[in-house]
Amino acid sequence: MGGGIKVHGLPISTATMRVLATLYEKGLDFEIVPVDMKAGAHKQEPLISLNPFGQIPALLDGDLTLFESRAITEYIAEEYSDKGEKLLCQGCKKLKATTKVWLQVEGQQFDPIASKLAFERVFKGMLGMTTDPAAVEDLEAKLVKVLDIYEARLSKSPFLAGDCFTLADLHHLPIIYYLMGTDSKKLFESRPKVNEWIKNITARPAWVKVLHLQKQ
Amino acid sequence: MGGGIKVHGLPISTATMRVLATLYEKGLDFEIVPVDMKAGAHKQEPLISLNPFGQIPALLDGDLTLFESRAITEYIAEEYSDKGEKLLCQGCKKLKATTKVWLQVEGQQFDPIASKLAFERVFKGMLGMTTDPAAVEDLEAKLVKVLDIYEARLSKSPFLAGDCFTLADLHHLPIIYYLMGTDSKKLFESRPKVNEWIKNITARPAWVKVLHLQKQ
Repeated sequence: MGGGIKVHGLPISTATMRVLATLYEKGLDFEIVPVDMKAGAHKQEPLISLNPFGQIPALLDGDLTLFESRAITEYIAEEYSDKGEKLLCQGCKKLKATTKVWLQVEGQQFDPIASKLAFERVFKGMLGMTTDPAAVEDLEAKLVKVLDIYEARLSKSPFLAGDCFTLADLHHLPIIYYLMGTDSKKLFESRPKVNEWIKNITARPAWVKVLHLQKQ
Repeated sequence: MGGGIKVHGLPISTATMRVLATLYEKGLDFEIVPVDMKAGAHKQEPLISLNPFGQIPALLDGDLTLFESRAITEYIAEEYSDKGEKLLCQGCKKLKATTKVWLQVEGQQFDPIASKLAFERVFKGMLGMTTDPAAVEDLEAKLVKVLDIYEARLSKSPFLAGDCFTLADLHHLPIIYYLMGTDSKKLFESRPKVNEWIKNITARPAWVKVLHLQKQ
């Protein structure tokens, strides 16, 4: 295969956005290979060989093929550790371990609720489906409990793992971006430290570049 | 604080079992500090300061406090990389990246379905609740799709990441152990490569020690 970094995905997909933000933070050159999801391209060859779960994104870096957005971002952060933003703060044992904790918090505590809420509030509309108000209410009640823990955490440090922006913060960006365009934004804005954190991480030039891709 | 490794948790908890299996694989000394979950100890001090989500386990290693079982196992594997089993196969770039992919597959594709199925099939009974047959049917239909992908993967290599046993395999052990005690075991046993993989990973001495703890 060979060649540079290729991202098979779409700039509106939350999982793809997570990977694109990481590539921009690292200042790496890459090519986006659009996936025609309406035609079901992600469920067919050649994509199904890149990601057997039939989802986007998949990453090609030389002869290496990877899927699962959070595995791709960690790979990029470690493989290109000398470029751009650190994203993992590998130097300090405690910070490194704490970053791992908050990476898992995003994947196991925040995302299972927040991504369902974004589906109800945003993606159902895009797909011509109807939002279920009872589901929204239930998910918001669950999200509030998670955000209260975030508020306490962010009262101690500006970022989730500590003083550095890491992948643990970055992984939240796509879903938060979509939810901030809905009535659910009140859950974030009413928590001062969470609100400050969101303003901070969404203002990063790398993230602004990801959003710019959506407008092309 | 100081002192050795302490695991606040219970040997019947799937997340705690994940951590205990890792500690045994590494041959590390540790102490289990039981948590009286019936009395709600996990939702109160001092535990709520160790894990703000009010869940088990939490790990103390000297003055470091960690939660989220998958973050704890990765910390142990890296911090004690020179002891016991490697568990991450850090040496090879491709294998390291592929391990990350399959760690995420467990957390994002397998566990969200399999842990709900274990809740229906096993834990509801323990809690005096009634299993919902429609939920079981739905979850088993979803799990079958994931296991078909595992069967294809395990036809290429004996373990998920390749030729080495890694945390990507280990993280599956607790839920698979519980499901193999239910009628859902047919989903695993009917797939030859998955079945072989399960026989292989559940026979590991470290895992046998975890199960032994449940009988104490």
